[in-house]
Amino acid sequence: MTAQVEVLDTTLRDGAQGEGISFSVQDKLELTRALDELGIALIEAGNPGSNPKDLEFFRRARELPLENARLCAFGATRKKGLPCGEDPQLKSLLDADTETVVIFGKSWDLHVTEILRTSLKENLDMIAETVAFLKAEGRRVIYDAEHFFDGWLGNAEYALASVRAAAESGADTIVLCDTNGGAFPDTVKDGLRAAEETAALAAALSPLEGLGGVVGIHAHNDGGLAAANSIAALQSGARHVQGTLLGFGERCGNTCLAALIPSVELKLGMSCLPQGKLRRLSEISRAVAEIANVALPEEMPYVGSHAFSHKAGMHADGILKLRRSFEHIDPALVGNDRHFLMSEVGGRSAIAERAKKIDPAVTRDHPVIAALAARLKELEAAGWAFDGADGSFELLVRRELGRHKPLFEILAYRVGSEHPTGEAIACSHAWVKVWVDGQDEIAAAEGNGPVNALDGALRRALFRFYPELAKVRLEDFKVRVIDGTAATAAKVRVLIQSTDGQDHWSTVGVSEDIIDASRAALVDSIEYKLIGDIERKFKVYL
Amino acid sequence: MTAQVEVLDTTLRDGAQGEGISFSVQDKLELTRALDELGIALIEAGNPGSNPKDLEFFRRARELPLENARLCAFGATRKKGLPCGEDPQLKSLLDADTETVVIFGKSWDLHVTEILRTSLKENLDMIAETVAFLKAEGRRVIYDAEHFFDGWLGNAEYALASVRAAAESGADTIVLCDTNGGAFPDTVKDGLRAAEETAALAAALSPLEGLGGVVGIHAHNDGGLAAANSIAALQSGARHVQGTLLGFGERCGNTCLAALIPSVELKLGMSCLPQGKLRRLSEISRAVAEIANVALPEEMPYVGSHAFSHKAGMHADGILKLRRSFEHIDPALVGNDRHFLMSEVGGRSAIAERAKKIDPAVTRDHPVIAALAARLKELEAAGWAFDGADGSFELLVRRELGRHKPLFEILAYRVGSEHPTGEAIACSHAWVKVWVDGQDEIAAAEGNGPVNALDGALRRALFRFYPELAKVRLEDFKVRVIDGTAATAAKVRVLIQSTDGQDHWSTVGVSEDIIDASRAALVDSIEYKLIGDIERKFKVYL
Repeated sequence: MTAQVEVLDTTLRDGAQGEGISFSVQDKLELTRALDELGIALIEAGNPGSNPKDLEFFRRARELPLENARLCAFGATRKKGLPCGEDPQLKSLLDADTETVVIFGKSWDLHVTEILRTSLKENLDMIAETVAFLKAEGRRVIYDAEHFFDGWLGNAEYALASVRAAAESGADTIVLCDTNGGAFPDTVKDGLRAAEETAALAAALSPLEGLGGVVGIHAHNDGGLAAANSIAALQSGARHVQGTLLGFGERCGNTCLAALIPSVELKLGMSCLPQGKLRRLSEISRAVAEIANVALPEEMPYVGSHAFSHKAGMHADGILKLRRSFEHIDPALVGNDRHFLMSEVGGRSAIAERAKKIDPAVTRDHPVIAALAARLKELEAAGWAFDGADGSFELLVRRELGRHKPLFEILAYRVGSEHPTGEAIACSHAWVKVWVDGQDEIAAAEGNGPVNALDGALRRALFRFYPELAKVRLEDFKVRVIDGTAATAAKVRVLIQSTDGQDHWSTVGVSEDIIDASRAALVDSIEYKLIGDIERKFKVYL
Repeated sequence: MTAQVEVLDTTLRDGAQGEGISFSVQDKLELTRALDELGIALIEAGNPGSNPKDLEFFRRARELPLENARLCAFGATRKKGLPCGEDPQLKSLLDADTETVVIFGKSWDLHVTEILRTSLKENLDMIAETVAFLKAEGRRVIYDAEHFFDGWLGNAEYALASVRAAAESGADTIVLCDTNGGAFPDTVKDGLRAAEETAALAAALSPLEGLGGVVGIHAHNDGGLAAANSIAALQSGARHVQGTLLGFGERCGNTCLAALIPSVELKLGMSCLPQGKLRRLSEISRAVAEIANVALPEEMPYVGSHAFSHKAGMHADGILKLRRSFEHIDPALVGNDRHFLMSEVGGRSAIAERAKKIDPAVTRDHPVIAALAARLKELEAAGWAFDGADGSFELLVRRELGRHKPLFEILAYRVGSEHPTGEAIACSHAWVKVWVDGQDEIAAAEGNGPVNALDGALRRALFRFYPELAKVRLEDFKVRVIDGTAATAAKVRVLIQSTDGQDHWSTVGVSEDIIDASRAALVDSIEYKLIGDIERKFKVYL
C-alpha cells in the first residue's frame, strides 16, 4: 500500500509572516478554498485570540463547503506559571472551534532559559499540561517542537525530554521544526530518528489509548535546504509535512509545498493529495500567487513557467527525440507545459514544434521553417529576443505562413514629457491616430510616463472598433538596453506581458527609441489578442 | 587543515541558457571582473567556436587583470566518427587559449543510443580520445559527466565505464552532473562514492602521472534540491563544485553558489573563497544581479534582502535578547544586514567607511551617519538603490555633510517623440533651459530616443559654463522596472555609467516617468564630474 503523508499548509499563518505578504480576510477565505481544491489535508490559519481579523476568518470559514481540508487553530503552550484553564490564549484556541489544534513549545534549552526565562522543568510542565488540557477538550493535538534540531545539537537529552512530555500527554502528531532554517539533511535524519524512538516509547508506556506516534517535519529555507530536509524526514519515517504552497514565510520562507509534493508523490512513491489532484498543482499555484498578489517565481521547481523550458538547441533536439532525455518528469503530471524557447541557440525542430500549434500541417522540413529560422537569426542579430515573447513569436510565424492579417494600423502618434508640469496635465501625454478597416480615429491620454500615456491613447483609439480590449491590461513591463556601449543612443528591448483575465501573453519590441520599441510591443500585444479572439469566436483560421 | 573546495562559476555559459538571460560582451567582461573579485577559482565562459560573441569575449578577457579566477573554455567530446585533430569544435576550444578546458560527454547509455545515436563503445572512445587529445595539448582537463546520476540509476556499469574512460585518459577533475536536476541527495551520495572509487582505481592503474582523481558535482534545481545535492557530494568526498552565483541556468537553474558557499564554509568547515571574501558575498551578488539586469530574489538564502528580516514580534524580541535565537548565522559573515521591520541599526559601519572618503574626520558615531542611514532607508523604500551608483551615493553623502553646492539647475525641459518623423527631424527631440550662477541658457537637441535627446540638450545648454563636459560621455544605460505589477505606470530605476576618458562613475534616478528618472541620473552624473573637477583643480573642498 502507498504510504500516506499528511500535508499541513500554513500559508495563512507562517506565510503571512513573510516580508511583503499581507492577507485580507477575503484573501484568506479564497486561499482556503484554493488549498482545499488542491486536496491539502490541513490548513493552519492563525490564532483567533491574537487578532480580530483571525477571529472573523474562523467565523466565516465555518461556512465554506470544504471537501478535503480541515482548518487548524494555532497557538503556544500555556504561559509560564499560569494554569491552562486560566490562560486566555488557550481559551481563544478552543473558541476557534476546530477539530485540530496546533501548539508550539520549546525544545531548545537555550530558548527556555534565555528567551522564555523560566526553568527547564517548568517548560516541560507547560508542554505536558497544555497537550493534556486540549486532549481533554476533545481536540486532536499537533505539537510543534520549535527549534528541535538546534536543541538536539545543543542538548539532545532535553530536546528529547520535551518530545517525550508531549507524547506522554497524548499529542497525536509531533512535528520537529527547523525554526531557524539552518539544519542539514543528515542532522534532520538523525534527530528525527531519535525523536521517533522517544515518541514511540512514550506512546507505548502511556496509559492513554490511541496515541498515533506520528512524527512530522516543519522546515525553513535559510540554507536553501527546506525541500531536502523535508525529504530526509520522510525517508526517515515522518508522515506529516508542513509548509506553504508557494514557500511564503519569515525570512527565506517555509518549505515550498508546490516544489515538494511532486517529489514525494512521483519519486518517493508516497501519497500527499487525493487521486488526480497533482495534475492541478500548476494551475492552483498560479491562482494562489494571484490571490497573494505576487508573481509566481518563474524558475520555481515543477510549477514555474520556466520549469520545462528548453533554450539550448541541443536540449531541444534531445527532447524531440526522447522526452525524458532532458526532463526529470513529464510536465503534464503536475499540469505544467513544455516550452521551446526561440533563440539563437535553439534549432529548427523547436521552431517546427511551435509552428505546428498554428498550422498542424507544418513539419520540420516545410520550407517555411527554413525561412523562419533565417528571419529569427536576422532579428536576433538586430537585438530582438523571443524567448520571453511567445505572442510576438506566434505573430512572426503567422506572417511567414501567410496567416496574418493586420487588424489596425497606427497612422501617427506624438508623445511628450515636460517639466515643470502644468496644472492641468500629467508629466506625460500622447495622442494616437489609428486606421481600422477604412475608418480612422484619434484619441489622447495622459500618464505617469510616456509609455503609459501611449498605451492609454492607443487603446482608447481602438476601443470603438474592438471593445473587447477593455479587458486587456499590462501585467509587466521590462526594459533592457541591448548594447550598453552606445549609452542613451543604444538599442532598447521592451518586453511586455498582458492579460485579459484569462490568458497571459508576452510581446517584444526593439528600437533605438524606447517609445518606438514600446509601440511595437504594444501593437503585437493587441494583435495577438484580437487574432486569437477571432479564431476562437468564428472557428476560422485567419 | 581546512579542506579546499574548488568553485567553478558557469554564469557566462550555463547561466546564459536561463530563460530571459542574455549577456552582451561588455556584460560578460563585467561579470568576470565581479566573480574574480569574489575569489571564484574558475569561470566557465562558453565555447569560442559556437559564436563570434564568445570569441570576442575570450579575446578581450585576456586583457583583464584577474587576481583569483581563471577562465575555462567549454565544449563537447569530439564528434562521432571524427578524429580529434579534425574536429573544428575541439580546434576552437584550443584557440580560446585557456589553461583549463571543460568538456562534457555522455554517461547515460540511453543518451548514447537515442540522442547521440552511436554505439556504446564509440562514446567511450570519444571520451577517452578527447581527454587524451586535450591533455597532450597541455591543458588541464575538467570532464563533465553529463546525466551521470540518471545513467547510474539506469545502467551503473556503463556510467562508471564512462568515468573510467575519462580518468584513465588523464582527466584532472571528473564532475558528475545531475543534468535534468531531478536526483535526490541519497542517490548523489551513493553515485558519487561509486564514481570516486572508479576514478581512484583508474588513476592508480593509469600509466599517466599526476592524476588528481578529484571528483566534483554539477547540480540543477528542478527538484529544488541543487544545494542539498551539492552538500551531499561534498560530504561524500567531492572537492569541486559547479554552479552560477545567483542560480541562473536552464529551466529551474543551476546550483546557486551565493546560497551554497556560506553553507560550505560556515557549516561544513571547508574553504571555497580566499580569506575575507565571504563578507563581500552579498555586495557582489547584488552587483551581479545589476549587471544581469535582474532583481536579486529577496528571499534568497544568505544574500537576499529578506534573509535576515524579522517580522514576527516574537522573533524580533528573541533576537534582541540573543542573536542566535532566531538566526542560523550572523548576517555580517556574508556581508548582509539584519532588518527589524520596525527599526534599523545595521549598515552604519559601511556608510561611515564611504563617508570617510569625502571627509576623513567622519567616524561611525558622527551624527551625520545616523542621518544618512535614515535617509538611505527612506530612499530604498521608495525604490532607489545605490549598490551600483557610487556617484549618486557620494552626492547624497555630500548633501548630508553640507559639502554640496548645486552648480546648475534645470528650469524646464520638454521632450517629444513622434511618428511618422518629419523629413527634417529625428524621432525624438528635446529642449532644456538651465540656470547657472545667475544666468540662464536654453538649448535643443534631437536624438534616437527621448533620453538621448534630453542628454544632448542638457549638455549643450551647460557647455558655455562648463566646457569640460565635452569630454564626458555615457557608457551604459540601464532601466529596471521596480514593481512590475502596475505595468507601464510602475516606477522605473535608471542607472547610467559615465566616463570622461579617465574616470568612470555611475548614477541613479527613480521615478514613475522614465524621462524624469533619466533626468535625475543625468544631473547626478554631471554634478559628480563638475564637483570632482573643482576639488581637484582648486585643491579646495566644496
